[in-house]
Amino acid sequence: MKQSQLFSKTKKEAPSDEVAKNAQLLIQGGYIYKNMAGAYSFLPLGLRVIEKINTIIREEMNGIGGQEMHMPSLQDPALWKTSDRWSDENVDVWFKSELKAGGEVGLAWTHEEVITDLMRQYVSSYKDLPFFAYQIQTKFRNEMRAKSGIMRTREFAMKDLYSFCATQEQHDEFYEACAQAYARIFDRIGIGEVTYKTFASGGAFTKFSHEFQTLAEAGEDIVYVDQEKGIAVNEEVLEEADLSELGVTKDDLEKRKSIEVGNIFSLGTKFSEAIGLMYKDEEGNDQPVIMGSYGIGPARAMGTVVDLLSDDKGIVWPESVAPFTVHLIGLNGDDSEIKDWADGIYSALQKRGVETLYDDRDARPGQKFADSDLLGMPYRVVVSKKMKEEGKFEVVARATGDVSYMTEDELYSKFAV
Amino acid sequence: MKQSQLFSKTKKEAPSDEVAKNAQLLIQGGYIYKNMAGAYSFLPLGLRVIEKINTIIREEMNGIGGQEMHMPSLQDPALWKTSDRWSDENVDVWFKSELKAGGEVGLAWTHEEVITDLMRQYVSSYKDLPFFAYQIQTKFRNEMRAKSGIMRTREFAMKDLYSFCATQEQHDEFYEACAQAYARIFDRIGIGEVTYKTFASGGAFTKFSHEFQTLAEAGEDIVYVDQEKGIAVNEEVLEEADLSELGVTKDDLEKRKSIEVGNIFSLGTKFSEAIGLMYKDEEGNDQPVIMGSYGIGPARAMGTVVDLLSDDKGIVWPESVAPFTVHLIGLNGDDSEIKDWADGIYSALQKRGVETLYDDRDARPGQKFADSDLLGMPYRVVVSKKMKEEGKFEVVARATGDVSYMTEDELYSKFAV
Repeated sequence: MKQSQLFSKTKKEAPSDEVAKNAQLLIQGGYIYKNMAGAYSFLPLGLRVIEKINTIIREEMNGIGGQEMHMPSLQDPALWKTSDRWSDENVDVWFKSELKAGGEVGLAWTHEEVITDLMRQYVSSYKDLPFFAYQIQTKFRNEMRAKSGIMRTREFAMKDLYSFCATQEQHDEFYEACAQAYARIFDRIGIGEVTYKTFASGGAFTKFSHEFQTLAEAGEDIVYVDQEKGIAVNEEVLEEADLSELGVTKDDLEKRKSIEVGNIFSLGTKFSEAIGLMYKDEEGNDQPVIMGSYGIGPARAMGTVVDLLSDDKGIVWPESVAPFTVHLIGLNGDDSEIKDWADGIYSALQKRGVETLYDDRDARPGQKFADSDLLGMPYRVVVSKKMKEEGKFEVVARATGDVSYMTEDELYSKFAV
Repeated sequence: MKQSQLFSKTKKEAPSDEVAKNAQLLIQGGYIYKNMAGAYSFLPLGLRVIEKINTIIREEMNGIGGQEMHMPSLQDPALWKTSDRWSDENVDVWFKSELKAGGEVGLAWTHEEVITDLMRQYVSSYKDLPFFAYQIQTKFRNEMRAKSGIMRTREFAMKDLYSFCATQEQHDEFYEACAQAYARIFDRIGIGEVTYKTFASGGAFTKFSHEFQTLAEAGEDIVYVDQEKGIAVNEEVLEEADLSELGVTKDDLEKRKSIEVGNIFSLGTKFSEAIGLMYKDEEGNDQPVIMGSYGIGPARAMGTVVDLLSDDKGIVWPESVAPFTVHLIGLNGDDSEIKDWADGIYSALQKRGVETLYDDRDARPGQKFADSDLLGMPYRVVVSKKMKEEGKFEVVARATGDVSYMTEDELYSKFAV
């Protein structure tokens, strides 16, 4: 994409009303826009990052048999009363409204009830199980305080997968497969090394659930981690957890701030019993379906990448989620011969499928380099009169600062898809 | 995809609580699920159709320079008061709620105010214009009566594009380019022949806006159409319209029911003046940005395709939006040799990139054929003992019923991508 045509622009200063580094950098770079406290727009560059993360999530969820669907936000109170999660006493994050046609309506802050009710149409026998359904859909949560930039907002997309099993063995097998898929997702988006599967509060049906916690100073959570063994325990369950059973000792655990980037829950038969999602087993007896739920927030993952990997010059995107792989910086743009040549390099990269942001703006080199550092594409390639004369391009890796010089052919062979 | 693994299932009967053909067939086929009046889930097959339509829309919007973004649903009343569209007297479709942190909040039923406000950050000079931004995002509308199945719901995705121009010439050029892109979209999804660019009420700033109206008995609108000349006029402006200026006479116009599948509006400077979206012209004077808005509802487009193209046996998808191109029907599934051979054909189709739904269920042939007609994939390919022995596959086109017989090689060369 030509940067001159991109409607978003970088700003000289970070916004003064944001404390969180992720929101500061993303707003300054024109990735996102804050519409109100807890509600952000994703501008073209930001949406590209989200879509890359979504694609990785979809690939991994489809890989373990997930079927994608889409459920509505508008909710009928009657359904949520069956699970006792409608009242504001029990759930303090509802947005509620009134139908013009009469009656209350809520905005889904999760979808367990919705999918359990829906599946009553499609499950009757053990032969229908197991299966796994997911969506990437908006959640609305009426948080008292929106905070941490795009990490805790009042409206955000969530990938929520639900598992439906006939037996505990089926459930355990999928639960483990999903945990592994989550680990792959966090690896692929570049935060795997500091993300730990963490023992957390399990609710009514299992001793523990699991969170995926990324160690980060900006985190809201506290975990105790044994980095060597790759095991972490959420502060909330440190006392209950039998640490020896988990293979760690309290002395080896380090107290760290962290960001919850994903969670997986065994729901048991809580929702299937409340809502009546039953199947007939091989003997013809009615049994409640065993369920699990598995969440990842793509925007929180994006914010975590920014918080964790940025430096004092700006954002540092891993290639897997960068909006563009190459930031092509055109200098000497007032020299039409150089401009034509640079345009040609851009077209050639485009033709080879290289995702390229081309800074063809009429701007000073200093501003272009500063913007390039702020925006954080993995590779900066400068095209200038000097490069043309020397027959070499300067290629700078954003993460390491490593500089290499390449011929046109070497450039294409490095980046061509 | 193997049909045995698909969690959704067809039903013997159409649902009794739906009047609209689109909802009846889509629910019966397991494409969608009705959660409450005016709020539907899109199940895996249905979501595939929506995604195909979205992809076509994106290609056409990107092709005319559209930049995709994403704006939130939650709305601050203050913004909407500047354009006088917050009060329930002026706008009767708001869903409103209360923030736990204090204050009212609304759910966006359109996004003109939001994007106009946002663009104040990025527009300062005529050099920044023109540009075009769009999203595919949920609209919430508190309709008194949800009706016509997925055609008029209380929550639905909309592709809404907004144009920002410095001059009327820039605006007119884009408006025409978008009209042509819309015509291509409706052509590509299979309803182009009966979809007319229609003169409609223009609001405050132009004499007419344009709707894209698809002639259909299930429609809620009335248009007067000259099919030969390809011109239609919405009933609401028939009296004001100078028909001779449009090149038609009243006698040539036929009164028809129709579905509004898209609309394009010149907004003039209504929102930019109210909200303060100004640019400096070449003389350095402040000028309000000239805007337009351009909408298409993917679910309504999907419903229109179903209403228009289905027959008494079920849905008939055009190839462009079908969830799968080929419905592979495995018969003689109790014969393991035939089953293995059929599985191999399925794998071979998959490997060649042919989108295939494989009916590997343990079900009677009659049910498989009936379901195949109901689900409406463009081509049905039967694999059975008879076919194996004869070395030919029976390929039936769903739309025409045309039957052809193909060898394995012919099958692959017909469908391979």
